[in-house]
Amino acid sequence: MPRYDAPVRDMQFILHDVLSIQNYSNLPGFEDATPDLGDAILEESGKLAKEALFPLNKIGDVQGCVRNADASVKTPDGFKEAYAQMVDNGWLLLGKSPDMGGQGLPYVVNMAANEMNSSANMAFAMYPGLTSGAFEALMAGGSEEQKAMYGPNMASGKWAGTMNLTEPQCGTDLGLIKTKAVPQADGSYKITGQKIWISGGEQDLTENIIHLVLARIEGAPEGIKGISLFVVPKHIVNEDGTPGDRNACSCGGLEEKMGIHGNATCVMNYDGATGWLVGEEHKGMRTMFVMMNEARLGVGMQGLAQAEIAYQNAVDFANDRVQGRSLTGVQAPDKPADPVIVHPDVRRMLMDQKAFIEGARAFTYWTALYGDLHHKSPDEKVREKAGDYMALMTPVLKAFLTDRGFKMANEALQIHGGSGFTQEWGLEQFVRDCRITLIYEGTNGIQALDLVGRKLASNGGRAVFSFFAEMDDFIGTRARDTGQETVIEGLNAANEHMQDGTTWLMQNGMSDFNNAGAASSDYLQLFGLTALTYMWALMAKVAVEKKGDDPFYDDKVLTGQYYVSRILPEAASHLAKLKTGAELMMAMPADRF
Amino acid sequence: MPRYDAPVRDMQFILHDVLSIQNYSNLPGFEDATPDLGDAILEESGKLAKEALFPLNKIGDVQGCVRNADASVKTPDGFKEAYAQMVDNGWLLLGKSPDMGGQGLPYVVNMAANEMNSSANMAFAMYPGLTSGAFEALMAGGSEEQKAMYGPNMASGKWAGTMNLTEPQCGTDLGLIKTKAVPQADGSYKITGQKIWISGGEQDLTENIIHLVLARIEGAPEGIKGISLFVVPKHIVNEDGTPGDRNACSCGGLEEKMGIHGNATCVMNYDGATGWLVGEEHKGMRTMFVMMNEARLGVGMQGLAQAEIAYQNAVDFANDRVQGRSLTGVQAPDKPADPVIVHPDVRRMLMDQKAFIEGARAFTYWTALYGDLHHKSPDEKVREKAGDYMALMTPVLKAFLTDRGFKMANEALQIHGGSGFTQEWGLEQFVRDCRITLIYEGTNGIQALDLVGRKLASNGGRAVFSFFAEMDDFIGTRARDTGQETVIEGLNAANEHMQDGTTWLMQNGMSDFNNAGAASSDYLQLFGLTALTYMWALMAKVAVEKKGDDPFYDDKVLTGQYYVSRILPEAASHLAKLKTGAELMMAMPADRF
Repeated sequence: MPRYDAPVRDMQFILHDVLSIQNYSNLPGFEDATPDLGDAILEESGKLAKEALFPLNKIGDVQGCVRNADASVKTPDGFKEAYAQMVDNGWLLLGKSPDMGGQGLPYVVNMAANEMNSSANMAFAMYPGLTSGAFEALMAGGSEEQKAMYGPNMASGKWAGTMNLTEPQCGTDLGLIKTKAVPQADGSYKITGQKIWISGGEQDLTENIIHLVLARIEGAPEGIKGISLFVVPKHIVNEDGTPGDRNACSCGGLEEKMGIHGNATCVMNYDGATGWLVGEEHKGMRTMFVMMNEARLGVGMQGLAQAEIAYQNAVDFANDRVQGRSLTGVQAPDKPADPVIVHPDVRRMLMDQKAFIEGARAFTYWTALYGDLHHKSPDEKVREKAGDYMALMTPVLKAFLTDRGFKMANEALQIHGGSGFTQEWGLEQFVRDCRITLIYEGTNGIQALDLVGRKLASNGGRAVFSFFAEMDDFIGTRARDTGQETVIEGLNAANEHMQDGTTWLMQNGMSDFNNAGAASSDYLQLFGLTALTYMWALMAKVAVEKKGDDPFYDDKVLTGQYYVSRILPEAASHLAKLKTGAELMMAMPADRF
Repeated sequence: MPRYDAPVRDMQFILHDVLSIQNYSNLPGFEDATPDLGDAILEESGKLAKEALFPLNKIGDVQGCVRNADASVKTPDGFKEAYAQMVDNGWLLLGKSPDMGGQGLPYVVNMAANEMNSSANMAFAMYPGLTSGAFEALMAGGSEEQKAMYGPNMASGKWAGTMNLTEPQCGTDLGLIKTKAVPQADGSYKITGQKIWISGGEQDLTENIIHLVLARIEGAPEGIKGISLFVVPKHIVNEDGTPGDRNACSCGGLEEKMGIHGNATCVMNYDGATGWLVGEEHKGMRTMFVMMNEARLGVGMQGLAQAEIAYQNAVDFANDRVQGRSLTGVQAPDKPADPVIVHPDVRRMLMDQKAFIEGARAFTYWTALYGDLHHKSPDEKVREKAGDYMALMTPVLKAFLTDRGFKMANEALQIHGGSGFTQEWGLEQFVRDCRITLIYEGTNGIQALDLVGRKLASNGGRAVFSFFAEMDDFIGTRARDTGQETVIEGLNAANEHMQDGTTWLMQNGMSDFNNAGAASSDYLQLFGLTALTYMWALMAKVAVEKKGDDPFYDDKVLTGQYYVSRILPEAASHLAKLKTGAELMMAMPADRF
């Protein structure tokens, strides 16, 4: 049977050994981010994930959500109780700001807790995850009154929040939104339209649901410049702060889908529902984008999280299942056959997963720490660089971690052979659940376009040049360290490939935008491979210093070498592909496919 | 809504333009393989797939199979009628030998028909597919009496056949089989044991099911050398050839699985069932292996088939869905947005699919033609080469086409964005159904081991050296042809990479078998990439000659160039990976993962 155990030591290694978050105690929220306290929080959080959320993972998949005749939605058995437990014990307040009743824990620490929840039960974790996204959007764009009215209950999770963007005719291209908002005399708006694929649009976990809805005010400009953001509570909030009258919005149906069955994916009908403008008229996308970077990091993390749980179970299977004998002679003479982990091709798949997961986790936390620095550093230069990095790394992290996370979950399934294809072992669920991460919060193709079309060129390429300089600097000062030569050589090669690809893009992407589009996904992969190489270089540095004390560090050094030797070679192939440009890709007339 | 239309023209292009099967009219079964007759068969077969099988594809997925309390199994609504239609109209006899009532159509033509059925409804097509496998095994290993008793009814599909290999403790390692066979005075055996994952082990489509069962005769040697093959009919056949007494074997349960829900995956319990030995005692694996090569080609074809149907629907979606505007300016001013096929990254995914599918189809049919030549050529030299190629190419084709087929089906899903994740559009089913092809008939890792450990070295490498020489020869004679320079250059590079990888394996794989195991999957990918390059070279040659007549040929030339420019670069990365050897892969102790 599948299991999940939070990889607390690996998380602590990144937080404290690699990122040294204890050195940022001058920042708000970091005062207590000591290794000891971190241990306590991560251990407890891991227990919650293992004991409360993971046991509901398969139930959620098999039962799914059910829409009742009255348009209410029942979540799978046990979800309601587990959610109440999380709220009651204040788990959702960990990362929220103290003025909203939160504990103000660093974003980077909260990310580790969220990773655990996502590994243990992705469909469940999406409910508080989306609420946090909506909460942050309200904090960024809402009025003081709105913040006070919705903030504390959303922060604690007593109320849920949702994001309503997609409509049947538009997903990626939000300029096509038709949902309309008609101003009322009292300053509110009547919202009318249909939204689809609304995660948690209706559920039985919370007494109120605060919908954030993109809509077009009557007479607004066409396209993306006429979109405004509204807050539309399921129950209109009374003056005393309690949920009051039922608003004119409801779940019109649930989507049948490949995975995340425990999360209700709703068609939401707004039939003249009462809503209030968030921020300025026609500037709804601006608030949305503030929130979207963090949401996208969260999705990248989900890719990592599914790879992690799949990997844990693949390790168990590879050690337990006996089949065939080692190519180099019998290893387990007392057994009818050797455990399959003796076979190099099984090892290859496990090492691929391990090298990806640990690199991906470092990349996620490293980026999240820039999120903290961007918001909290007293130094303007630091805030600027952190903002640059967050913006640049977000699309890479989202797409690279979900692409590879899905691939690695599939490798974990493959190690199980036929057992991986059956429901019993859980692997096929991890794969199905993971598949959505390549799509939502902007498909991975959209991430690639965001990277090459917007983030790369922003401020004259300031962010990416700063990243190149950082890697060059690291290579320069570490080149003579012993024990990490392989990784430094790899970083040097990756850095050169990436600079080469960037130069190609600058020379060819502007003269023909299709060249940029054609190169975008390969460039993103090249970037992701390079970023993980840098992460392995940072990890190897620490591990080499500590090597000898503990095999934990030997394994890090080894895994970094493996990453550079057996995964990084793909970078050259992405570089070769991206340089071929758009011509062959665009030549065939569309009707001849 | 999803659709399927048989790609008849592409199939004919390969059969008649590229492989020129009409030139083999001296071989039995090929007399009538003219383009005209081929058209008629393929058109009709395509109609059957589209009109009878495809409409049941989603029903089969949603309903699945049901085991009744009496251990009988109900297949999804409509399966029974569609199967009866196939049997009544003689569809299953197309490729069967004339002495069994078949039409004796070439294997290569039958492969095209099977591809259609697999695209349209993979779960359904597995029922006759497994029957054909069991039929071929009986033809290869059975006595004249057994052939006469079971052959004609299995050939027509009136009776089904199954393959019973796997047991709970063994899948890959069949030496661990425990099912036992006790000899009886009348020459029969009593078979007792449990088999799992038996496709079509029980169903309501046929009046009898002929199980082929691997078991160990009491007192047999341990391991793989003590395995015998038995025929165990569900109903023992009366002297008049009708199904008689019910045998002591039954379905103990159905597996809950990720996909192919329309196919009953059974636990089969043999409780002293009556069976008869097929071939010699303890030589069961020999007969199994005869059959397995063809079965593995069939699985490779399934990977291609799922990629094909996924691609067709992705093309439709990309042309229909409007979202965003082209990077180079508005393309569809009359619409609210441009069709997504204008976006380079969508094009990239479509071209990747197209270049894979057409190359994979050529590789499948090219290999299948060697199957015909191996069995039917009057020339011993030709038979030998064909046998060599069949053996060598089989693991490559099985693993490469299913790995990539799954990847490409996922790309087709990705083009659909959120719609791809919902059941409505069918894509998520194609992906789930396809996933098993990487596992059954030997996991893809096992294929890679079969390739490097057995097939490559067989007869001193005669097969692979012959393949190198064939490519060298092609490059030499075509190097000066105009219009196909890109493809010839690509073939030259691929050929060099593959020879390089082969040399590395010969030098390092024998001294440390783990090096061979560690390199095996990357070597197989390198081989597959090279084989498809050769296929594109063969196709480009014809297309260049016919270019100008018809845009169909221009598209082939273009797609071949695309393949070489944008897919083949992966070969170098596999070469780099395989040369790193086993050391890093095997270094970490198993209990530290």
